[in-house]
Amino acid sequence: MKTYRTLTNDIIEQLKQIVSESFVFLDEETRTAYGKDHTEDLVFPPAVVVKPKSAQEISQIMKLANEYLIPVTPIGARTGLSGGMLSVYQGIGLSLERMNEILNIDTDNLQVITQPGVITQVLQDAVLEKGLFYPVDPSSKGSCFIGGNIAENSGGARAVKYGVTKDYVLNLEVVLPNGEIIETGANTLKNSTGYNLTQLMVGSEGTLGIVTKIVLKLLSKNDFNVLMLVPFYDMNEAAKAVSEIFKVGIVPSALEFMERDAIDWTLKFTDAIEIGLKDGIQAHLLIEVDGNYQDVLFAQAEKIMEVVEQFRIDEVFYAETEEQKNALWKLRRNVAEAVKSHTIYKEEDTVVPRYELPALLKAVKEIGAKYGFKSICYGHAGDGNLHVNIIKGDLTDEQWQNDVPKGITEIFEKTVALKGTLSGEHGIGLVQKNYMPIAFSDISLQLMKNIKNVFDSKGILNPGKIFPDNFSENSY
Amino acid sequence: MKTYRTLTNDIIEQLKQIVSESFVFLDEETRTAYGKDHTEDLVFPPAVVVKPKSAQEISQIMKLANEYLIPVTPIGARTGLSGGMLSVYQGIGLSLERMNEILNIDTDNLQVITQPGVITQVLQDAVLEKGLFYPVDPSSKGSCFIGGNIAENSGGARAVKYGVTKDYVLNLEVVLPNGEIIETGANTLKNSTGYNLTQLMVGSEGTLGIVTKIVLKLLSKNDFNVLMLVPFYDMNEAAKAVSEIFKVGIVPSALEFMERDAIDWTLKFTDAIEIGLKDGIQAHLLIEVDGNYQDVLFAQAEKIMEVVEQFRIDEVFYAETEEQKNALWKLRRNVAEAVKSHTIYKEEDTVVPRYELPALLKAVKEIGAKYGFKSICYGHAGDGNLHVNIIKGDLTDEQWQNDVPKGITEIFEKTVALKGTLSGEHGIGLVQKNYMPIAFSDISLQLMKNIKNVFDSKGILNPGKIFPDNFSENSY
Repeated sequence: MKTYRTLTNDIIEQLKQIVSESFVFLDEETRTAYGKDHTEDLVFPPAVVVKPKSAQEISQIMKLANEYLIPVTPIGARTGLSGGMLSVYQGIGLSLERMNEILNIDTDNLQVITQPGVITQVLQDAVLEKGLFYPVDPSSKGSCFIGGNIAENSGGARAVKYGVTKDYVLNLEVVLPNGEIIETGANTLKNSTGYNLTQLMVGSEGTLGIVTKIVLKLLSKNDFNVLMLVPFYDMNEAAKAVSEIFKVGIVPSALEFMERDAIDWTLKFTDAIEIGLKDGIQAHLLIEVDGNYQDVLFAQAEKIMEVVEQFRIDEVFYAETEEQKNALWKLRRNVAEAVKSHTIYKEEDTVVPRYELPALLKAVKEIGAKYGFKSICYGHAGDGNLHVNIIKGDLTDEQWQNDVPKGITEIFEKTVALKGTLSGEHGIGLVQKNYMPIAFSDISLQLMKNIKNVFDSKGILNPGKIFPDNFSENSY
Repeated sequence: MKTYRTLTNDIIEQLKQIVSESFVFLDEETRTAYGKDHTEDLVFPPAVVVKPKSAQEISQIMKLANEYLIPVTPIGARTGLSGGMLSVYQGIGLSLERMNEILNIDTDNLQVITQPGVITQVLQDAVLEKGLFYPVDPSSKGSCFIGGNIAENSGGARAVKYGVTKDYVLNLEVVLPNGEIIETGANTLKNSTGYNLTQLMVGSEGTLGIVTKIVLKLLSKNDFNVLMLVPFYDMNEAAKAVSEIFKVGIVPSALEFMERDAIDWTLKFTDAIEIGLKDGIQAHLLIEVDGNYQDVLFAQAEKIMEVVEQFRIDEVFYAETEEQKNALWKLRRNVAEAVKSHTIYKEEDTVVPRYELPALLKAVKEIGAKYGFKSICYGHAGDGNLHVNIIKGDLTDEQWQNDVPKGITEIFEKTVALKGTLSGEHGIGLVQKNYMPIAFSDISLQLMKNIKNVFDSKGILNPGKIFPDNFSENSY
């Protein structure tokens, strides 16, 4: 483990000189607020919160941190689910919130250049106004930052058709841990020029550099969509239906799975929409198709109906108005929050090849029964991405601390045995790092650690993330 | 520069024990044949050619090479255009041609697992038989290997709609330079678990590891396409029309640019098709749309017509039969070979944001005029990817050696100024490496070099590629 120095008044003074006094915060309220995200109930406040306005200011901060061996943790919108922004070694909490400008919406090249502190939905709305479409659609889009999406390689409901964040990132400006500023690539759709530093940066959870400018590919907007909610009497059949839909040649723009409790709890939490949740219904699929030709969408919806009707389903609900569509999406997006309001929980972000979803779901329930915990499962079934919310409920603290992690280990082992992995879109951050050896051999982890050392030889940038606690730093 | 040892009889004997005597070749004919690809007229034979059959055999070879400090150059189908497989330091030429099995076509998950030595078109045909579609379509697909496509991050005509190789690679089995075998990721559509080693490997041109197993995402096949050839009286207008097509919301499955000479020379080279090439036509766009709904394709074709008719064009040729479609594609795919049969040339693989294509084209012609060379330009205009074939023609050897590289430098400087880069799909390999400082700062190159050192501290795997000759190895 690295030994860091603590902040001195002298360093605080230098920080104030870089970003001005008004953007250096030492008060407990601010530090606490910037010491937590949406991950469980964890709080790790930084010793100081700074809010720079430019890559140049960040560069100066990193040079200072390098000189004095002070840990720096980049902070986005604090909506993360793996604790990637928690200042576990205190030091400087570096908020990107003031770098919130959309710099250029390029309607000629179908690209947008943006700073990292822009809220994802604000970006989506701004490009939509010009007839363009940024499809990556995390559930937290109303509050998360696009920079955080880069850090975690965020997905969301539309990833099944449109891909995840990494599929839209063309080029990045990055401040390296030593304060140097680089561009990782070019503003082009194709690039075979040297190693792919852009893709190395995406999903690296703020451990390799601080992204200060982002060039994203855009699409033209779609004019139409059809949204339907299909209730299944058997949750495994719902999971099976997912891959059957792709087999008939349809790529839905969203294919979401929600087990009964996910909907039930959310209906109690939000008044989004009235759904008659019949006895015996175990799960729902929320299915959307989109495009520019309404006839095609109706034909696709019909084909989807033919598939789901092969299973035991109840009456399918078609959203007929924009209002109904928004309500259905609100229902889906509120699941996590509804569960959280109900009980303490741990959220796992398992992902498997799509067809293995029923096997994963079955295993999750069996392992839960073995260790005595209940789980609420939902997520992006079209991608094989199942969110497993493990509920504290009536468990004792001891069971929560000791038994549940054993169960999670078994769930991850099963996930990896199915050729899947630990996280589809939330990242490893703090809370999943000790499970990394389930997904990667020691050799692979060592390669990653050595890459980390290439970028950050002093280990000052976002320390304590991704790599297991007991990870030995023997060279590969 | 590293100093390598030469092969001894003892090492040759050990190689024979690993792959058996029949797959170790020391004769000049074989060594010469495995010492060239499609890059100019360059020949760099390895001291020995070995043809292993498995990751285990490759692992043993790498352990041996590590022990004795022997350079190893991975060799695919030898169709590369940047000299990535040339054994510039002799040593072991490691051919992947015997690892040519498609291991599993997974119709449940829409994935294929394959060895690297499978010809891309063989793979495409095999999955198509099961109703599936691998869209990445390099012009050399009839002879190149899928492993080589991974190494160079190959593109091709359909990249404009479907993306390049990197967009289909889910997971890789890789033999590292020290002989260890790893998997880079998981067989999932999404992955936010640690650094993206998969994407680091794609496009690394066989310098970080030897790919021995590949998991690719597949799509469902499309039933229909429409293909048209549009002759333009002004080549800059053809280039401009490209981004106009995207602006009306259409994403063609191919949008290829060919200037007059490209077609003219190819018509003389192949009897693929009869095209009345009228006086005054300066360039053609070859445009394809594909999908499952023929009515939609006709509507899109009509919209495309509305766009191109705003420019000075001659009569548009619609391919009505499969035969005509194949003939048009044959014409396009044969351009490079036709030019090559005509004269010695250097092929550049410039790529810019799509809208900058006219500016790039204009600059290429002006720089050619300045340095006295002729160029034939064609390529994947929808991606902003312009292949510039610089023709030796009547140039003296001295002009070819001295003036042309100056012109290429200026072309690349212009490309980068337009926010583009050196290579869209051919890679850097041997012939472009000295231009790398145009695209990357010293800091970025140093990061890449240090990543190379993480994987290959002895520098034995595919040495002499990507990094400039005079690149100093000061640590970042």
